Formats: sequence, C-alpha cells, structure tokens
Amino acid sequence: MMPDYFEKHQERLRQAVETIQSRAAWSPFSDSPSRKIHGDAVDKGLAAFQARLHQPFEIDQPGTIGRTGFEVSPYTQEPLGITYPKTDLDVLYEAAHGAIPTWRDAGARARVGVCMEIVERWNKNSFESANAVMHTTGQSFPMAFAGGGPNAQERGLEAIAYAWQKMSRIAESAAWERAFGPAQVKLQKRYVLKPRGIAVVIACATFPTWNAYPAIMANLATGNAVVVKPHPATILPMALAVESARTVLSEAGFDPNLITLVVDTVAEPIAKDLVARPDTAIVDFTGSAQFGAWIEQNAHGKLVYTETSGVNSVVLESTDDLKGLAQTLGSALCLFSKQMCTSPQNVYIPRKGFRHGDTTMSFDETANALVETINGLLSEPARAAGILGAIQSENILHLIDRAREVGQARGKILRDAAPYAHPEFPNARTRTPLILGLDISDTDIYSREWFGPVIHFIAADDAEQALAQAARDAKQFGAINSYAYSTDPKFIERAQDAFGDAGANLSINLIGPMPLTYAAAFSDYHVSGLNPAGNATLTDASFVSGRFRIVQTRTLV
Amino acid sequence: MMPDYFEKHQERLRQAVETIQSRAAWSPFSDSPSRKIHGDAVDKGLAAFQARLHQPFEIDQPGTIGRTGFEVSPYTQEPLGITYPKTDLDVLYEAAHGAIPTWRDAGARARVGVCMEIVERWNKNSFESANAVMHTTGQSFPMAFAGGGPNAQERGLEAIAYAWQKMSRIAESAAWERAFGPAQVKLQKRYVLKPRGIAVVIACATFPTWNAYPAIMANLATGNAVVVKPHPATILPMALAVESARTVLSEAGFDPNLITLVVDTVAEPIAKDLVARPDTAIVDFTGSAQFGAWIEQNAHGKLVYTETSGVNSVVLESTDDLKGLAQTLGSALCLFSKQMCTSPQNVYIPRKGFRHGDTTMSFDETANALVETINGLLSEPARAAGILGAIQSENILHLIDRAREVGQARGKILRDAAPYAHPEFPNARTRTPLILGLDISDTDIYSREWFGPVIHFIAADDAEQALAQAARDAKQFGAINSYAYSTDPKFIERAQDAFGDAGANLSINLIGPMPLTYAAAFSDYHVSGLNPAGNATLTDASFVSGRFRIVQTRTLV
Repeated sequence: MMPDYFEKHQERLRQAVETIQSRAAWSPFSDSPSRKIHGDAVDKGLAAFQARLHQPFEIDQPGTIGRTGFEVSPYTQEPLGITYPKTDLDVLYEAAHGAIPTWRDAGARARVGVCMEIVERWNKNSFESANAVMHTTGQSFPMAFAGGGPNAQERGLEAIAYAWQKMSRIAESAAWERAFGPAQVKLQKRYVLKPRGIAVVIACATFPTWNAYPAIMANLATGNAVVVKPHPATILPMALAVESARTVLSEAGFDPNLITLVVDTVAEPIAKDLVARPDTAIVDFTGSAQFGAWIEQNAHGKLVYTETSGVNSVVLESTDDLKGLAQTLGSALCLFSKQMCTSPQNVYIPRKGFRHGDTTMSFDETANALVETINGLLSEPARAAGILGAIQSENILHLIDRAREVGQARGKILRDAAPYAHPEFPNARTRTPLILGLDISDTDIYSREWFGPVIHFIAADDAEQALAQAARDAKQFGAINSYAYSTDPKFIERAQDAFGDAGANLSINLIGPMPLTYAAAFSDYHVSGLNPAGNATLTDASFVSGRFRIVQTRTLV
Repeated sequence: MMPDYFEKHQERLRQAVETIQSRAAWSPFSDSPSRKIHGDAVDKGLAAFQARLHQPFEIDQPGTIGRTGFEVSPYTQEPLGITYPKTDLDVLYEAAHGAIPTWRDAGARARVGVCMEIVERWNKNSFESANAVMHTTGQSFPMAFAGGGPNAQERGLEAIAYAWQKMSRIAESAAWERAFGPAQVKLQKRYVLKPRGIAVVIACATFPTWNAYPAIMANLATGNAVVVKPHPATILPMALAVESARTVLSEAGFDPNLITLVVDTVAEPIAKDLVARPDTAIVDFTGSAQFGAWIEQNAHGKLVYTETSGVNSVVLESTDDLKGLAQTLGSALCLFSKQMCTSPQNVYIPRKGFRHGDTTMSFDETANALVETINGLLSEPARAAGILGAIQSENILHLIDRAREVGQARGKILRDAAPYAHPEFPNARTRTPLILGLDISDTDIYSREWFGPVIHFIAADDAEQALAQAARDAKQFGAINSYAYSTDPKFIERAQDAFGDAGANLSINLIGPMPLTYAAAFSDYHVSGLNPAGNATLTDASFVSGRFRIVQTRTLV
C-alpha cells in the first residue's frame, strides 16, 4: 500500500496554512547546523558530499545523450569532477508530458502529501546539500546550511501551503438550479483542476535552492511537471534536490519524470531554448535582470515568475545606537561577500551630518565608524570566513577591479578589497569588501547593481535627498530590500511612503543579531513585483493561483 | 459625512463571497426586463437613452482635446449621433496617476464598498444601458437587458467578492519573534497592499459589459485606476458605465479620474498606444484572437488578461429526446446571430448514424431535423427578432457571403442566410443563419472561428472521430464551451476527458429553456486559460490576485 503522505504531514500543513495567514514566526526546521541538534548527520552529510565528487551523478531520466559538468569549488578552486546527464529535450519533454495525467488525476490531496514528503527528504539531506551549496556558491557552511537548507525548505513548504489553500477552496461540484420562465433548470456542475503543463525552473548561481524550492513546490503541487535548469556553476544542490524528489515520487507510485534535471554549460546555454519551447507553460527564473527581461519579452503567453536584481539602499538619518548600527550594518555589507539579492549596496550618509544622540557626525566620521567596524569584524580569519565565505566566480573579481578603477578615477577608495586567508581552505577565492566614497551626483556609478563585495558610501546633502534618490533608484532599477535608520518618527513615515511607492520592502532601525538580509518564510514577503527586481513574491497567493486552471462540465439533471 | 457603502452592501457581499465558494445558484438582480418587476423604469430607461442621441456625451475628465464618435444602430442603420471626448493620453494618465494614492490608502474596505455601490448604480440604470447595448451591438432587447445588464453586473460583483476575499485575508501586521543565538529578536511587521497602477480595459463590440464589468471591478477594488477603451462601434454602454462609476466615486469623496473613458475610431485606433505605454500596468482585453496575440507579444512585463475567440463544437452521439435537442441546439445556433464567444459553431453528425432512441438517423436526417427546427423557430418575425437580434457590423455580412461561396464550392448549403423583416425596425441589419454541410476533412474551412451566423454541420465517420477532431480544434484554435449529446455514459466520460484536456468547458445533454450559451456568474467558470480562447477565467482567484501587490516594513521592537 502506498504511504498516505498527506496524513503523515497533516499537522505540519495545518500549521503552515495557519502561518501564511498570520505571518507570525514559525520554523518547523532548525536552521542551526549544530552537532548538538543533528548528531552524526553532520559528518554523514559531509561524507555523502565527498562521495559525489569525481563521479558521474546518475539520474535515471529519459533522453540522456552524454554527460557534462564543470563545477569548481570557490573554496578549493578545483573542479568537483561531477558529471551530469546531457539531455535530448524532445525526449525529456515527452516523458514529462506523459507523467502529468496520473499526477493531475491523483488530485490536490495526494499531490500535496507527496510534496510535503519531498520537503521532508530535502530537510533530512540538509548536510549533504549544505556542502554542495558551499562548494558551488561560495557560501560559508553555516549559511549554506541555514539559507540553502531549512530556510529554503520552509519557503517550499510555504508554497505548498498556498497551493493547498487555493486548491482546497475550489468547490469540486455544485448543484445549480434556477427558473427560466416557468421552468426550473437543474444542472450538476463539476469543476476539475488542471495543471498548465511543463514548468521550467531556472536557478541562480549563488542562492540556488532558496528560490527554486518554492517554485518547484508551487508547480508540482498544482499538478505540473517540472524541468529544473541549474546555473552551470551550481548544479549539485539542484541535482540533489531533483534526486530526492524523484525518489519520493517513485515511492509514492508516481512517474519520477514529473521532475527532471537539465544541465547546460556556460559555452552552450540552453535556457533560451527551454523558455522558447511551445510546450513550456511556466517559467520561474532567478538570475540577471538582463536575462529576466529577455524572458519577459520572449515567453509570450507563458506564465513567468522572476526574481532578478536590484539596488538596495540604506538611508542613515539618525540613531541612538551607533555601535549597534555599525555592527549590524557592517555585517550585512560583508555577509557572503554581498552576493545576495537582499544585500545592501548603497549607504547614504548626510553631508550635513548624521545625528548620533546629541552629537552630529560628519560624512567622514560616519564612514570611518562603519569601515572600522567592518575591519574589526574581518580582523580574524576564522570570523571573516564565517561572514564573507568565498567569491562565487572569477567574474566577480573582475567586477571588483572595475569598481576600484572607477573609485580611483571618480571618488575615493574608503576601503580596498583584498584576499583574506581562509583558515580551512588556503586556495579559497576570497575578497574583503571594496568601499567607494561617492557623491550623490555619481548616479552612473551607483544606480545599478554591483553583484559582489562592492559597496558605495554616498554623500547626500541630507537624509531627505538621500531618501528621494534611493527610492527613485528602487523604482527605476529595482530593489528588494531597503534599510533606514532614524530616531525621527516623521522621517520613518516618509521613508515608508517613499520605499513603499517604489515597491521596496523597508527594514527600520534593525540592530541586533538577526542578519539584515534575513527573510523569514511564512512571514516576510520577498520581492513586491512593483519594480524591476522581479515580478513574483515569495510567497503570496498570486505566486501560486495561476499555475493551475479550472475546467468545468455541466450536466442536465 | 460620506456614506459607508461597505456597510450598506455588507450582506450582499457576504453572500457573494459565500457563493464564489459554493458555486451554487444566486442572483441578486433579476434578469427579466418585465414591467411587472421594474414598472416605469422600462420607459424611463428608454427615454434616457433617447435623450442621449444626437448629443455630446459629456464626461468631465482631463485631457479632452475634441470630440469623436461614429456609432450606428444595427437596428436603424442610422448614426446615434453621440460624440465623446477625444483625449490627450498624457494628460489623462497624469490625472489617473494622481487619483491613485488616496484610493489606495483608503484601504480595501472602503474601495470594496464603493465598488459595490457602483454595481448597484449600474443595476439601477439597466434599462438605459440595455437600449444602449441593443443599439450598438445588435442584441435583442431582452438579451441586451439580461446579458448586458444584471448578468454582467453579477460578474462584476463576483470580481469584487474575489478581491475582497483575497485582500481581507492578508494580515495587516504581525508581531514576529525568534531566537538568533542566545538573543531574542522581536520585529513588528506591517504589510501594505499596493495597486499596480493604471489598468486599461479594452471592451469588445458585441458583448461589451459582460467582460468589462468584472475587469473594471477587479482593478478598482484592488486600488488601480482604470482607463476604459470601448470598441469604436460600441461606445455608449461603456460611457454610461464610466459615467455612473465617476458619479459614485465623487459622491464617496474620491477622485472620479480613477475611471476614465478613452474613445478611438476604426480609422485611428489607439489600443496599441494604450498597451504600449510604459505606465500601463494591467491590460484586460476582449476581442479578436489576432489582437489578443499582439497584446501578449507586446505587453512585456504587464499583467494581461484576455478573452479572444474560439471554435465551439457540438458532438452528437445519441439522444432520447430529439425534439428537445433540436429546439435547444437550434436556438443556441441562432441566438444573437451567433455573435457570442460561447455560441456553438461546428456541429458534428456521425455518418454512421445518430442514434435516437431505438432508431438511427442518417447525417441528412439529422441535419434536416435541425434545419427544420431552426426554420420553425424563425418562421415568425417577432420570434425571430427576439432570437436573432441584428447583425453588429457590415463585416459580418461579408463574412456570410464568403462562407456561402466556400459552401457552394466545397460543401453544401444546407440552409441559406437571408434578411428577415424585423417587426419594429424595418431597416434593421438582419440575417438568418447560413448552414454549410461539410466533411470532417474540410478542416481548413471549419477549424477557425466564423464570428456571425455561419454554422457548420460536419459529417464525421462516428462520434469518436468527431470528438477527437473537436477537442483537437479546441486545443489548437481555442474554445470556450463545447457541447455533447449522448446517452452512453462511457462516451460522456471520454468527452469530458477530451474536452477537459483541451481546456474547453463541456455542457452535457443540455435540453430545455436555459440557453446553451448562458454562463452564470458565481457558478460558471468562463474560459479556462488552457487554450488560445483566452488566458483569464471569469472568475477565479487568479483573475484578481495579481492585480495588487504587498510591500512590507519591519521595525525593531
């Protein structure tokens, strides 16, 4: 007998549905990688990861026509040596299509149960996955575990909860009766949920699981088949996720080809082919703004969900806790070498002075305080390693070099980037952050995303001017998060209005151990869809409700 | 003090929200135009309509730079003589933008109340509107009243109910707390609903209100400003709707420019300009498949909802009520001269015989029975007028002529089209239906929409072949409704599967006084989004949930 996964996970699902409503704090999974909690799972995960290296990663999916794979660890700068199937898309798509009807007809309850079980398996495999995330993206191990594991899995659960909420609320049938003239007409109506078809999930290089898990779950739960296309530099985390999902599907009696992996290379990308295929019905994309725009322009008639990039700003008006601010903001500017879509990039400092309690600090004093704090945070290699991680790709090193040239020519180098010695991985590709001092007139430099450890301290006349510029950039170039520090409630209100109009979420006076960039599943809405940083929100109703459709029949009674 | 429209309409809203869930029968508005129900509203509506003729239609909206309007009544074939404002779009858009913030900040409750009141006013003006619909679209008066009035208004209510359901379920705030290491972090989160901006609603020539009302309501209720662009042949019904809505908005203390009218001409269409404007955020379109496809290809990054056209089929397998079937199907083939998106067009008749009780009828016998029934239905001009109405445009007359030529060259003319004498309007543009006899191999003729009184009786080997072809056409060319008649439960099941896979709603063995083409608000899902007939469903959650977004703020407690 097949396991009833819905029943197994009923309580967790109930709580997830309750929490997407309340948006309160709830975490079914611990995001600490501590041995005290997880015991020997830590070592087993590492061993499992190591056993993957220098091996073909076997996925028994149709249309395999060779092998490929060129991942390099940012920590060792050596190839992982793992190869993945190269795929004949026609064959794969045919198999995916063939898998849909049984999955569709199994109904929402069965599908949601299986999806809950897949997330459970992903959770059980968090340590192997964390090592995979670490050695492809460059994230530190604790972040690769928390952000790539439990936090991402919870976003997957959140998407399932929305899918269940939406699907279970649709009446399956109705007895309908009304008078037409003197006669009563009685109809029996039946409403059947239908998936759209094949959904392509294109994952990014630096934070692959966090956006891909919810997209996969939203698609699978609503009855679609999913083709996962990882970034060529970051395949392993997605291959592991696909493998687990296929296993669960098989165990539950479904066709594993409901989820498949398609791998490409930098030299021969296939994302455009996938998007353009007439039988691709849905595209979920995380990556560059440029390719996101291409998708929006070429995915005619398809459902497209994007998260691309943005210019996240910090407006400093006043504070009564300079030390706390500098610690919290300094950490956020450094975290994962600013290779996150929620990382702050542009820090506006008022030329007229940043008020700290009763004193007023000049631009230079404020900038110095932040730089010194950052230097302190990074002074010990072990601590630096935990915060900065490694640099995901060579391209980001070139970006830093370009930024340094720009800074030398046009502004000031307030802090230069430099390699730091990673205590465990001497060959790690590392850089501490480059901080440029710019003027608010230098929009050509700072009004775009510099993805990597490039930070701008921008001198504005005052906080009002800074706010106007930061909000304008958010609206025009996209922003996911914005940050304001002020003890003036009126200024806070204006900041809420300005960033709100720009569709940028705002964090106010956040000081403390929570990373500024942290976004909590079930509670934080990630990306508003109101500016170019993306059109999809993790997770709201509209992230899920269009992925299935309703077809009805009416029968005369 | 401003009226509290939400409180006024609370009970109706409650019932609407309940019914979108149950999909049971519920009609807050009577769709009979009977004097017994409506008293002198009948005559007052006619008089109000007549007073509009040969007058400028005044709308006090910004950017008016002249006047235009060339509507012609299909019943008198004379100009209505009404002129409407010609608009400078830049000025209008600026005004629409300016109207949004107050509307947005008023919140969902206030907006939904005002929207409910607008629908109420539309309902109160149903008779004037019905005359306007009749003398622009060519619909018979009873249909113009029911379909263009209460039935359409109820679809508007349905959209409001979804908007309220979606918006009211989103938490406005959350107290969030979790541990990071040894420290507890407490955040106060606030979630603010934001509209997307300006929504363009492009209405069609033959059934303007039925799709436009729900689109207008879905947009307004979620905080957007609406620009209504009617078809140049059918302006007056939308002008009346905009006028009423502006009045209610003003009375409620809001800027009436939240809804504006933009009129164009056949010679100088502006729909493309509206769609292409960067500050158009949402497009709702009802009209040709060709222009629908253009919109999908050009509205990059915008939210697009379409209903275009399709090939609706009838598969005849067997019946035990030939007379009832012929009456019901015959009426549906004639209704409003087949100028509806739900009208059946292709009637498949098995060559091997259509079973009627114990007898088997040949193709010719079946076709004859249907033609004779239609002839009977149309034999009296008064009855014919009530069923057929008038032909909306000259183009449709040309279409009939082309179809006749095709029929003469390739098939058989089973029934020729001819003018009928309208008892009230001797100059009415009228035609009875043209029925062609074709073979199932003639796909180049019948596998597309012939919008107007052109019907195909298609000889298939048997009902299975017919079903396969009909479903294939639905999938490839679009279909909204399909119809099957069979006494064989197994065949019915196969029909459900085939049309279900094609995303075409199916009506089974429908016989009786309810028009086959009737779609009930709150109960029938109209358009599945799974085939080219359109991407939006009236009304499901996804019709509404993307029209607003959520922006959040987090404040450290």
